[in-house]
Amino acid sequence: METEGRLEKQLHFLMETDKIKQVFRQTYLSDGSRKENDAEHSWHLALMCALLAEYANESIDTLRTMTMVLIHDIIEIDAGDTYAYDEAGNVTKREREVKAADRIFGLLPADQEAYFRELWEEFEAGQTPEAKFALTLDKVQPLLLNDATEGKSWKEHGIRVSQVLKRNEKTVEGSSRLWEHARGLIEKNAKLGKLRDDR
Amino acid sequence: METEGRLEKQLHFLMETDKIKQVFRQTYLSDGSRKENDAEHSWHLALMCALLAEYANESIDTLRTMTMVLIHDIIEIDAGDTYAYDEAGNVTKREREVKAADRIFGLLPADQEAYFRELWEEFEAGQTPEAKFALTLDKVQPLLLNDATEGKSWKEHGIRVSQVLKRNEKTVEGSSRLWEHARGLIEKNAKLGKLRDDR
Repeated sequence: METEGRLEKQLHFLMETDKIKQVFRQTYLSDGSRKENDAEHSWHLALMCALLAEYANESIDTLRTMTMVLIHDIIEIDAGDTYAYDEAGNVTKREREVKAADRIFGLLPADQEAYFRELWEEFEAGQTPEAKFALTLDKVQPLLLNDATEGKSWKEHGIRVSQVLKRNEKTVEGSSRLWEHARGLIEKNAKLGKLRDDR
Repeated sequence: METEGRLEKQLHFLMETDKIKQVFRQTYLSDGSRKENDAEHSWHLALMCALLAEYANESIDTLRTMTMVLIHDIIEIDAGDTYAYDEAGNVTKREREVKAADRIFGLLPADQEAYFRELWEEFEAGQTPEAKFALTLDKVQPLLLNDATEGKSWKEHGIRVSQVLKRNEKTVEGSSRLWEHARGLIEKNAKLGKLRDDR
């Protein structure tokens, strides 16, 4: 039996999260024409889940992982996108994001608020097979786009190989096969000078 | 065992489908600032699957439905978005879309090409519980955005109530509860003059 106001709460959340389409990342689309937004990025990760789950190091629940990547950036509606290589921004990130999760997931009926909150915290903690794989996809997708655009975003920010390697410390934990490919892309772009090789 | 070139084909498909982020629809984002693209629309439908599956008339496989909505518009990379109320465009739609499906899904390894092709044909045919629910979401989401923007897209095209009702003939088949809500939005917007009431 549907409790009163349940659908209205769900639709309110769905219209509030429409704002994710206006949260822009530092990565460019593959044609380099403009930066990507969080809705597009999340769609891409969900599609990767559907196609690449076979490369997860441990067996994963695909629906759970897909739902996780669909919602993992919703908190950025309030907290904004913190660029991976922005050290100052990353210090205050957690506090801003928890506040955002309270407000935005709080729009949902209690059971679905609890479910989305749990999925988001699981993603952030990165301990389960699903979260490890989701984090791997979240790191590999911008590498693919950076490679497709000849390092456009890397060059704009003068990014160094050591920074990319540090950011990808745990990428191997979700999928050693995808990390092997990603590492190849990093080496290729370092050789081409799209990434500053500081090793 | 991974067959040779399998990951490369999958990644090629994933970069090719990045183009969906540049296929624009007629519907505006909820803030009315610009039109929505297919990646954003597909992300939104997948999130609706996660939250609204409880309203499906028949029990559905959520993962299958979610994957279906994630890929349902990929053919528009070649075939373009055909506006729901463009009668001439809708005559040639099927032919253009089949050709697009051949090319784009054809980039994948054979097993995944077959899976995505099957999901897309299932969506188009609209006969299974999953496809019926996916089609309902695909119709209800733009109604929600049109309502949020005071009928911005409807007004631009002089859309009439009879056209919206005709387009939504089957919306009730996926979810009578969501159709009940959508019908209320149509009546409200007709009364407010955002839709031309030609009944």
